[in-house]
Amino acid sequence: MSNGSMLDETHDSTLRSWVERANDGVTDFPIQNLPFGVFCTAAEKTPRIGIAIGDQILDCAAAVRGGVFDALPSTQRAAVCDALCATSLNALMALGREGARAVRHAASRILRNTGDEASRAQQWRAQILVPMSDATMLLPAQIGDYTDFYASVHHATNIGVMLRPDQPLMPNYKWIPIGYHGRASSVVLSGTAVRRPAGQLRPDPAVDPIVAPTRSLDYELELGAFVCGENGMGQPVPLDRAESRLFGICLLNDWSARDVQGWEYQPLGPFLAKSFATSVSPWVVTLDALAPYRCESYVRPEGDPAPLPYLSNAHDAAQGAIDIRLEVWLQSAAMRASGIPAVQLCGADFRTMYWTFAQMLTHHASNGCNLRPGDLLGSGTVSGPGPTERGSMMELTLRGKTPVTLPSGETRAFLMDGDVVEFRGWCGRDGAVRIGFGPCRGEVIAAE
Amino acid sequence: MSNGSMLDETHDSTLRSWVERANDGVTDFPIQNLPFGVFCTAAEKTPRIGIAIGDQILDCAAAVRGGVFDALPSTQRAAVCDALCATSLNALMALGREGARAVRHAASRILRNTGDEASRAQQWRAQILVPMSDATMLLPAQIGDYTDFYASVHHATNIGVMLRPDQPLMPNYKWIPIGYHGRASSVVLSGTAVRRPAGQLRPDPAVDPIVAPTRSLDYELELGAFVCGENGMGQPVPLDRAESRLFGICLLNDWSARDVQGWEYQPLGPFLAKSFATSVSPWVVTLDALAPYRCESYVRPEGDPAPLPYLSNAHDAAQGAIDIRLEVWLQSAAMRASGIPAVQLCGADFRTMYWTFAQMLTHHASNGCNLRPGDLLGSGTVSGPGPTERGSMMELTLRGKTPVTLPSGETRAFLMDGDVVEFRGWCGRDGAVRIGFGPCRGEVIAAE
Repeated sequence: MSNGSMLDETHDSTLRSWVERANDGVTDFPIQNLPFGVFCTAAEKTPRIGIAIGDQILDCAAAVRGGVFDALPSTQRAAVCDALCATSLNALMALGREGARAVRHAASRILRNTGDEASRAQQWRAQILVPMSDATMLLPAQIGDYTDFYASVHHATNIGVMLRPDQPLMPNYKWIPIGYHGRASSVVLSGTAVRRPAGQLRPDPAVDPIVAPTRSLDYELELGAFVCGENGMGQPVPLDRAESRLFGICLLNDWSARDVQGWEYQPLGPFLAKSFATSVSPWVVTLDALAPYRCESYVRPEGDPAPLPYLSNAHDAAQGAIDIRLEVWLQSAAMRASGIPAVQLCGADFRTMYWTFAQMLTHHASNGCNLRPGDLLGSGTVSGPGPTERGSMMELTLRGKTPVTLPSGETRAFLMDGDVVEFRGWCGRDGAVRIGFGPCRGEVIAAE
Repeated sequence: MSNGSMLDETHDSTLRSWVERANDGVTDFPIQNLPFGVFCTAAEKTPRIGIAIGDQILDCAAAVRGGVFDALPSTQRAAVCDALCATSLNALMALGREGARAVRHAASRILRNTGDEASRAQQWRAQILVPMSDATMLLPAQIGDYTDFYASVHHATNIGVMLRPDQPLMPNYKWIPIGYHGRASSVVLSGTAVRRPAGQLRPDPAVDPIVAPTRSLDYELELGAFVCGENGMGQPVPLDRAESRLFGICLLNDWSARDVQGWEYQPLGPFLAKSFATSVSPWVVTLDALAPYRCESYVRPEGDPAPLPYLSNAHDAAQGAIDIRLEVWLQSAAMRASGIPAVQLCGADFRTMYWTFAQMLTHHASNGCNLRPGDLLGSGTVSGPGPTERGSMMELTLRGKTPVTLPSGETRAFLMDGDVVEFRGWCGRDGAVRIGFGPCRGEVIAAE
């Protein structure tokens, strides 16, 4: 798949929608985006699939019932319409990239401000649009397995310097997209409060470990990729087909308890330091919507090995990355009480990752591991090379040694109770159409 | 819960069943066992819940339809009967230990060779019993999350000596039931062939890694524990309640690619070395059935720290362990061709584990991680202190350096294509009633 062939009329920057707020230039959800999510309302508690447009949600089941999707290609219509009437995105994800692509194309026609399909849809406006302010968002999919990677060489280096100064990067780092299995049950939606976890800590190696609420609660700025389609056990996924298995992307906060992690992680990796909560943003921005923002993968500095053949092809090198700007914002309880807005702690570029999502997925399946629709891949913390590009507090404050000062005068080595962490992500620098992900937010609440 | 209160009439060693083969003294499934599984038949492809008895399966949905379970306590009858008519054990697991206990008590009365309930059930024999030889067993539950522990200090030491001779046991080992998240999608039923996985290997650190089928495919002799009930996110499970969250136990083979593991596992733990396949035996032996075999937990040698208070209570110390004998048997393709039966490679005792399943579960939830019905906990490789008690080939052959010789004259450093690995497990030494787990078996097939 070349970038050229990925661009089509849905990406036309001149498109406008009959949903007024989609055209305001600041929304995350113009008609060029059209991300998928799952929501319910007070009036209708059954979860249903929606597509974000401006400040509204296109209720897909209602649109199916109203015949608004009748222009879907006849070969796909029945399967896609069934999937759109489900209570999660898993069935649509099971149809592969093509299913979501057909729906996104139809939604683009339905929601734009010209054409017959749009005129007909507008007559159904009251039935098929739900204001976001009336909706409660839900997890977009039932996540069978959640895998977290470690794909930023800047993050891996920043962390490694603190934990293993003699060997910050393991010898395998530049050969393997390092990852580990995460906990699926505790993946929660943006907005869910995160209770400070307790755990075993050993602040002083000379004395016995203790059990206490973590003293170094942290966020990790990540993207999550939802898998679509399915490969049977024993069936690898060649890199050429990896992008056809990537449904779309959301923001992901891999909350971490650094003191728990430091004491528990040898030799089998992070466990309770991560499994208490992982937050995801509700809207899944499809790989198709991201096509205009594809760019050259990270250029490995001289001396770094080339990726092994199974992790390398021309498309991935030339356009495997995605130019997504990511930001971390924090507001303490005292700031909220004083009306001080959130402060930005970090801004980082996803295109600086050492490995692409396609490489991560292909590596994941290279042993024959079966990846199922709705599986979630975390990118690992996105950090850039600079001091303002550190995607975790551990990196930002050098493990708490150089606390940051907030506009309220408070300082933070790690997160405190009452802190609200918000991630934002968007594409469209340099005059391109701006599309965004919607926030991924969580408030830290006190340990029990 | 004390061991005394756990013993009841279902454990009476004099009980006999009207299913003749349940009384032969060699079956894994006498009336004192009554494990749960899920099966289908050629005539009826819909999965349904069964209870093993001798060489037969009690078809629970058929028994519910026939009114055979009408004597269940009225407070539980409706919920339990609904759960027994499901296509997996998750709904029964959601009811907690009590649901399965009520069913096991009823099944004991239904299947014994005296009493009114049994007489009535016998009249329905043709409707409610399915010969095991006619059944295809299926995964007992939809596994939301699979977590693998590392609870044998003998195994951890054996492996540690080879990988980190200067520090075989990490400083955390005797404080923390070390575990890591495993892959749920590739947990398969006993009998499923296991394809030799390919992966990145670096046999010679002086040259670049290669991609090749693993050269050191191994088994790991483990037990799996299925979780029942549910704790909400942020809600730990005190040790006093941990056993109420353990539904039952099966055999588990944590297939491992040692060369892949050695190259990938730093710093985030095992990933592709494990995620290609994990096999479980089909019958889940309930904690209730195991009550007569409870015994003192591993007695920590002098100098070892006592478990921290959250991992310690009198019951767990006195009877937290289970006296289960575990065995590994191997038959190569050449042995099969020559009619040579499988050879035993290992026999180990589960009661030698450093941590109990209750401690593992409580530790797992200590950070508030929500554990759901159907979640699976692996014990980690069960190895004892002796040379014949090594639960993996890596330990048995000292990483391939001292190959074992098979009765066919072949040698094995690690597993070869065509090898069939079979685990067996049973309780009841010293004259107690013998109950067993049924085999956990898998044949290694060649890489693609």
